[in-house]
Amino acid sequence: MNVNGIHYRTIRLKDDAPDTVQIINQKALPFKFEILDLHSLEDTAKAIKDMYVRGAGLIGAAAAFGMYLASLEAKENSFDEDIGKAAITLKNTRPTASNLAWAVDRMLLCLLEKEKTPEQKKKAALETAQAIACEDSESCRKIGLHGLEIIKNIAEKKNGETVNILTHCNAGWLAFVDYGSALSPVYAAFNQGIKVHVWVDETRPRNQGAALTSWELAQQGVSCDLIPDNAGGHLMQRGMVDLVITGADRVTRNGDAANKIGTYLKAVAAKENGIPFYIALPSSTFDFKMKDGVKEIPIEERDSSEVRFIEGKNSEGKIETVQICPDETTARNWGFDVTPARYITAFISERGICRADEKSIMSLYSEFV
Amino acid sequence: MNVNGIHYRTIRLKDDAPDTVQIINQKALPFKFEILDLHSLEDTAKAIKDMYVRGAGLIGAAAAFGMYLASLEAKENSFDEDIGKAAITLKNTRPTASNLAWAVDRMLLCLLEKEKTPEQKKKAALETAQAIACEDSESCRKIGLHGLEIIKNIAEKKNGETVNILTHCNAGWLAFVDYGSALSPVYAAFNQGIKVHVWVDETRPRNQGAALTSWELAQQGVSCDLIPDNAGGHLMQRGMVDLVITGADRVTRNGDAANKIGTYLKAVAAKENGIPFYIALPSSTFDFKMKDGVKEIPIEERDSSEVRFIEGKNSEGKIETVQICPDETTARNWGFDVTPARYITAFISERGICRADEKSIMSLYSEFV
Repeated sequence: MNVNGIHYRTIRLKDDAPDTVQIINQKALPFKFEILDLHSLEDTAKAIKDMYVRGAGLIGAAAAFGMYLASLEAKENSFDEDIGKAAITLKNTRPTASNLAWAVDRMLLCLLEKEKTPEQKKKAALETAQAIACEDSESCRKIGLHGLEIIKNIAEKKNGETVNILTHCNAGWLAFVDYGSALSPVYAAFNQGIKVHVWVDETRPRNQGAALTSWELAQQGVSCDLIPDNAGGHLMQRGMVDLVITGADRVTRNGDAANKIGTYLKAVAAKENGIPFYIALPSSTFDFKMKDGVKEIPIEERDSSEVRFIEGKNSEGKIETVQICPDETTARNWGFDVTPARYITAFISERGICRADEKSIMSLYSEFV
Repeated sequence: MNVNGIHYRTIRLKDDAPDTVQIINQKALPFKFEILDLHSLEDTAKAIKDMYVRGAGLIGAAAAFGMYLASLEAKENSFDEDIGKAAITLKNTRPTASNLAWAVDRMLLCLLEKEKTPEQKKKAALETAQAIACEDSESCRKIGLHGLEIIKNIAEKKNGETVNILTHCNAGWLAFVDYGSALSPVYAAFNQGIKVHVWVDETRPRNQGAALTSWELAQQGVSCDLIPDNAGGHLMQRGMVDLVITGADRVTRNGDAANKIGTYLKAVAAKENGIPFYIALPSSTFDFKMKDGVKEIPIEERDSSEVRFIEGKNSEGKIETVQICPDETTARNWGFDVTPARYITAFISERGICRADEKSIMSLYSEFV
């Protein structure tokens, strides 16, 4: 996607420097656009742990490149051992990110192949990391094409009037290598000249909507307005939302979806108001071992300081953190909630569109039946 | 209610200084507790307009005391004219606050009585202002006693386990003269030794929950936790909310309720999860001229800077405003939403408890049938 009119991916190998990986520093957004160079396993682990990179797809790709950088550092006489340690280091950066473990395991397969020399392994590691990044991007591009059909249908029913889409959190290209999940259909529709407008939930407490979704939509030129998380119900009741699209962190085989806290409230309100509610996700987000999302998906409780403090730009242009409650106030901070399948109109994955029930999901994923 | 163990009201005449009205400066809360002296109509109009005082009940009482201060300033040979001008000044401070106009009109009745001398009028004005404040406090106290029965019933069903109450925005004593509406039943239950815990919605964009509700609950010693507005659905789904109580800004004769933006989302989620949803309000909040709240209640759209900027305390202890989105981001900011009657379990007013339908409401307000 574009930043200041130039095409970027969230992660890539540096031009003419095959031992350097470049990322967008998402901690500096939206106030500063900054490219960081990662030269080592240590750099990469820090970038993931401290959330310079974030989002399921991007974390997976970053971990893959981290394993590649680890292979460049590994000593010839302890290559396998060094690689094994690198895998543990990376997996420990964000223990709940399922894409991370999956990407590291895939890198291990090629890095620990017995028949290959270290040089061959390094070459294979680079190819595999590139493949993981490209596959992520390609999945998101296809999600966009499938989702485009949904938006196109609504635009036709509205006789070309603007289609209003509400989204929660950031499931745009910043969370993946390119295109995004929830926002990919929006970009596809926008690029086809369909009139779209996005209601961007600010997404308290970490404000990914205010900081990241607002920013990336503006960079592509997509019309959008930031709203408090409280406003979505009012907009739905007044006919100002045509559809909701969010991403997901984990989806069970019967279609229950864990996503950023607050998604469930929007899904319930959408159903009450007869508004379609879609979840866009790459296939890797499905967890076919789980059935009942409310009972089985663990919900991470995060540090309460994320609720008690907010970061922003002060009047002098400096980034500053302010406390929004009394000193003695305690807070609770669950990161995700589970939207039961009955509130979800359909899932949009790179394989196509399916309803939120086991039979329909399994029709796209017959190898997991 | 108590602040640092001392009983306060949000507004009162200064001890031994009958020409001075004292208010709590709500703009300084929660970081500083400050009493301000109002000496004139001008002081009072500024306090209301710039939100040093806020909340339906308190605005009404402040306007009444403002009319009293205006009577002290009015010239003998242009008394009625000066009083008429004062009324217009006060009504223009917050045009949508219905309690304000009601209180000013009631003060005008006693200030423009033909048979009285200016001195008699000033005396009557003080008595009427005191009466308006006392009636507000007394209504809220009674709301607490009626609501107490609801909480007591739930506590009994839970065999004395803690009753978890979710509230949105600030409908505590800071919004009235004393006790509050939504929080009055909580204080009544707490004072009777019933174990209660309050989930405090932060209430973006103005954060009245984080700043005011958290503060006043802590001052009374009531157990509470601040949560992002996004969290309530998750808590309800997990059985962590026993009832919801909010205030209201306007309620129609068939029971549709306008309240702070985001109330509707909580009401819908409460219904989905079988959790009772109550609205506590003094009778003056009913608007018996209106029927269909979604169609008839005007919804104020406020300045988008309230969404784009947040105020808090920085690391040096200074109050600072920070911007949370890119410079180019536009935002929308509706102040209220309407919760249709079908989501509301009952209303709690000083007259008692009634279901959210015209017949039941009219059984308490037969003079408006």
